[in-house]
Amino acid sequence: MDVNASGAWAIGVDVGGTKIEAAQVDATGKIGRMIRRPTEARGGPKAVKTNILSVIKDLLQDAGSPPSGVGIGMAGQIDPKDGSVHFAPNLGWRDEPFQEELARALSLPVFVTNDVRAATWGEWKYGAGQGCEDLLCLFVGTGIGGGAISGGRLLSGCSNSAGEFGHITISQEGRLCQCGNRGCLEALAGGRAIAEQAQEAARMDPSEAAVLLQMSEGQMEKITAQVVAQACRAGDPLACRLMEGVGESLSAGVASLVNALNPCRCLLGGGVIGGTPDLVRRVDEGVRKRALPPATKTLQILPAQLGDLAGVVGSASLAMTRFK
Amino acid sequence: MDVNASGAWAIGVDVGGTKIEAAQVDATGKIGRMIRRPTEARGGPKAVKTNILSVIKDLLQDAGSPPSGVGIGMAGQIDPKDGSVHFAPNLGWRDEPFQEELARALSLPVFVTNDVRAATWGEWKYGAGQGCEDLLCLFVGTGIGGGAISGGRLLSGCSNSAGEFGHITISQEGRLCQCGNRGCLEALAGGRAIAEQAQEAARMDPSEAAVLLQMSEGQMEKITAQVVAQACRAGDPLACRLMEGVGESLSAGVASLVNALNPCRCLLGGGVIGGTPDLVRRVDEGVRKRALPPATKTLQILPAQLGDLAGVVGSASLAMTRFK
Repeated sequence: MDVNASGAWAIGVDVGGTKIEAAQVDATGKIGRMIRRPTEARGGPKAVKTNILSVIKDLLQDAGSPPSGVGIGMAGQIDPKDGSVHFAPNLGWRDEPFQEELARALSLPVFVTNDVRAATWGEWKYGAGQGCEDLLCLFVGTGIGGGAISGGRLLSGCSNSAGEFGHITISQEGRLCQCGNRGCLEALAGGRAIAEQAQEAARMDPSEAAVLLQMSEGQMEKITAQVVAQACRAGDPLACRLMEGVGESLSAGVASLVNALNPCRCLLGGGVIGGTPDLVRRVDEGVRKRALPPATKTLQILPAQLGDLAGVVGSASLAMTRFK
Repeated sequence: MDVNASGAWAIGVDVGGTKIEAAQVDATGKIGRMIRRPTEARGGPKAVKTNILSVIKDLLQDAGSPPSGVGIGMAGQIDPKDGSVHFAPNLGWRDEPFQEELARALSLPVFVTNDVRAATWGEWKYGAGQGCEDLLCLFVGTGIGGGAISGGRLLSGCSNSAGEFGHITISQEGRLCQCGNRGCLEALAGGRAIAEQAQEAARMDPSEAAVLLQMSEGQMEKITAQVVAQACRAGDPLACRLMEGVGESLSAGVASLVNALNPCRCLLGGGVIGGTPDLVRRVDEGVRKRALPPATKTLQILPAQLGDLAGVVGSASLAMTRFK
């Protein structure tokens, strides 16, 4: 990116549990230089902060003009007032006044927000959500999260935690979720849940799970959601049954959200959708069966477009919107 | 109401399946003259329209000044652009250009909206939702509906059908709902569902349902949600078990909405809540167990305040907001 010529730009940073992704992003959502670095969450907050700072400094170095600001997306609960990180379970952070610290260290305006909310913003501004004033995004990775635009505004909620779509109950007596509740969408259709259900099936009946076990070097704990998706693509009946259940659970969850929020467009993204793109079609079919006709007649269900970059682009764009 | 002295006022009309309620409402939400009249839905759209028109004319007659406008709340799907009624199942209406017709007949501005959305607005402006920028209302009557205020704005959705909270799935394989889906909140916790579940239990084991049958003159089809609530208050174990299930289903449903939307306040209203006010406490307990701590720590769960009048007051207030 020729940041000298292009005018406004910002740095977007997506802080994941394993890697930090950061990039120069211009006002049209175009990505310039991009850096990936391990998060090193085990090193504690100090190590992670040092890594984030160094990535940002690298991106500042070759830029001709200073950025409007820096946007950071993190999985966690962020204080809407001062951007401090109340709780980021992936990183083991509790009450870190990160936004303020980083702004001081960089002498630049910094905006910290929830990573999935940033990704929703990214898809809305530059991805498959463009031009849509009532948008729902559901990201199905290890866990499930999302975001909603309603009447042209990103919903944040009372304490900045709106969009926890992985924790809507779709099966009152269903599988236990990491959150302690039962039958959450995430506990039935998230990547972790897919792997666990496959491993449970393999434990119950190793012969039925022969293909899954073979694909994971015979080690049950190596059966991941990716392995299940791959096995289903190869026609394995157990894997396909599991993925069918995932499609049905996602349909029930999306139907709930469609009835509650009546979006014009619903985007599905995240690793589980990326691994089985056909899920988008199946959810589309399922939602049209399950949800109310007034809500589905104006609804589009589409794959998200920006992939892993939604968070980086969205964080940068949020910073630009805020600090222009 | 001294409409001469009080300045701005409007007529609010709540068109139910059995009765029309209408009143003069001033800008502070105070109700002046009020009229109730049977809807006579069996007479078809023409009869109902005549009844609505006559109620409004009665309310105009003794008013010293003309109202800002007329607000009409109806159970149904209303076109956001021209207020025509696409579908009102209670009344058997399909594609009635009612807003335009009524405005012409009255020579007054008319605003037609969904009844539950109007009630949400009423509770927000003048009831238990006052001062709350992120509000959720759930009305549990024969069916279940609701509305949400997010960031100080009433959510309407893409085709004006947001707030169908009765049709979020809480039990994927649960009871069949009137909407055709399975395990909707309404199919487990709405008044109709309570009555049906009680009747099913009575059919299965009349001796266990002795109290319920006695309270309904021995006629199974006369076991209503009200009868179940009354029997539970009298200590009947079957009725109390049913109401416990209702509390759990409502908790699961409200927890889903709390996780998704992160409201500051959630109001529970409608006949089922009115008949068993203790449900508010039970849902409060259940939601705090089920939903995520970041979303519940700032949450209040309270009974709605305006009762049957929420729709009338809300419709009038929406008309005043629109036509001031």
